[in-house]
Amino acid sequence: MDVPRRRLLLISNSTLHGGGYLGHCQQQIKSFLGEKVKRILFVPYALHNQDAYAKTAREKLENVGYGVDSIHEFSDPVEAVRKSEAIFIGGGNTFRLLKALYDKSLIQEIRKRVLEDGIPYMGSSAGSNAATISINTTNDMPIVYPPSLEALGLVPFNINPHYLDPDVNSTHMGETREKRIFEYHEESNTFPVLGLREGSMLLVEGNKATLQGVTGARLFVRGKSPTEHQPGADFSFLLANSNLHNP
Amino acid sequence: MDVPRRRLLLISNSTLHGGGYLGHCQQQIKSFLGEKVKRILFVPYALHNQDAYAKTAREKLENVGYGVDSIHEFSDPVEAVRKSEAIFIGGGNTFRLLKALYDKSLIQEIRKRVLEDGIPYMGSSAGSNAATISINTTNDMPIVYPPSLEALGLVPFNINPHYLDPDVNSTHMGETREKRIFEYHEESNTFPVLGLREGSMLLVEGNKATLQGVTGARLFVRGKSPTEHQPGADFSFLLANSNLHNP
Repeated sequence: MDVPRRRLLLISNSTLHGGGYLGHCQQQIKSFLGEKVKRILFVPYALHNQDAYAKTAREKLENVGYGVDSIHEFSDPVEAVRKSEAIFIGGGNTFRLLKALYDKSLIQEIRKRVLEDGIPYMGSSAGSNAATISINTTNDMPIVYPPSLEALGLVPFNINPHYLDPDVNSTHMGETREKRIFEYHEESNTFPVLGLREGSMLLVEGNKATLQGVTGARLFVRGKSPTEHQPGADFSFLLANSNLHNP
Repeated sequence: MDVPRRRLLLISNSTLHGGGYLGHCQQQIKSFLGEKVKRILFVPYALHNQDAYAKTAREKLENVGYGVDSIHEFSDPVEAVRKSEAIFIGGGNTFRLLKALYDKSLIQEIRKRVLEDGIPYMGSSAGSNAATISINTTNDMPIVYPPSLEALGLVPFNINPHYLDPDVNSTHMGETREKRIFEYHEESNTFPVLGLREGSMLLVEGNKATLQGVTGARLFVRGKSPTEHQPGADFSFLLANSNLHNP
């Protein structure tokens, strides 16, 4: 495969404690989309109330200077993707989101627009999970059953958004996030998992990946100890796995 | 359907903070299994290291007075279920557990043994999820993809084990447990969800269900406000839904 034209901004979380929707990543969004993009195609499928969700996203992104079309307002969503200049998939429930992407036959078209045509893709939370190889490392409840856990495969690894460090004072006995990711890596044929703390995001430009934001990230690779990475870290090596799958 | 002969002990969590494995529910296990049962068939599929898991369960349950056979030590697991006097499915990853139950063709046989033959079934955490209508309300990561989210259907509702009340002081923006269950109920054809706090368990004898343990439970019914229930609460009404599905 040639160098993909992909341009991705994968955000851990849309709202940071104490801030408003997309408040903590406005600058990154602006610098990512630049001035060429005029309109963003918003994908609200991860939430139940898509009208309200589109309204929130529209208000915020218009403030940053972009027009917003919400895919749920189109009679032909595949055609909407085909004509889009940029895509933003919002957070919510990852299973619901992925099922909708399959049910509406959007997987291949989004892949094509991003990997071949090079339009920018932004995701936050569930929308970042959806961009990766699979949703195996989502934090969400499986409230619906998608036809597969394989996702858009825009990058050949997994993300765990809202990554939470183990709380040493907790008396709760449910598995920590770290333990859950270790369980994933007990299975064979599993991919690296980038734990993006709230406030972190990953910028991907072709074959270069850089950690942005302020909170850092923790990387889990099967068979190795987890490693800690600071803002600015170069994660391009995670893109080197040429095994980009085709769902 | 006639009154099912089912006898179930569905435990939120196998280990309570500060205690040992099954420490907080030894008395309930003893009183549930009684003196007629001599040997328990343990199902360790939710954890990766099944030998170690079986060893832990064997030590604990032998202390309480029962012999333990672990299903993973049999060449024919269906036959092991067919001959069992009691079944205990331990916790771990619910997706991994359910996939194993399907892959090994155990769903129908366990249903038959419990609902028709009346052998006692104990589950903890993932093993409690597996006993219900579906695993839609597990807390676990989808590390593998089972052929369905439908579970054993021994009761016509869902359980959320390790139920956690919202932490009003948290700055983490990931969904609370309550919010996740609300998201499940935004979907159509969804079932009541019993949030069993750590330290709680549900005893089902035929068509009678009683909350045991010390921490209480929270019940979520689609379209209604959640309700709080104390130890000793009668949950028999949850069994009245005759819509027991056949996976």
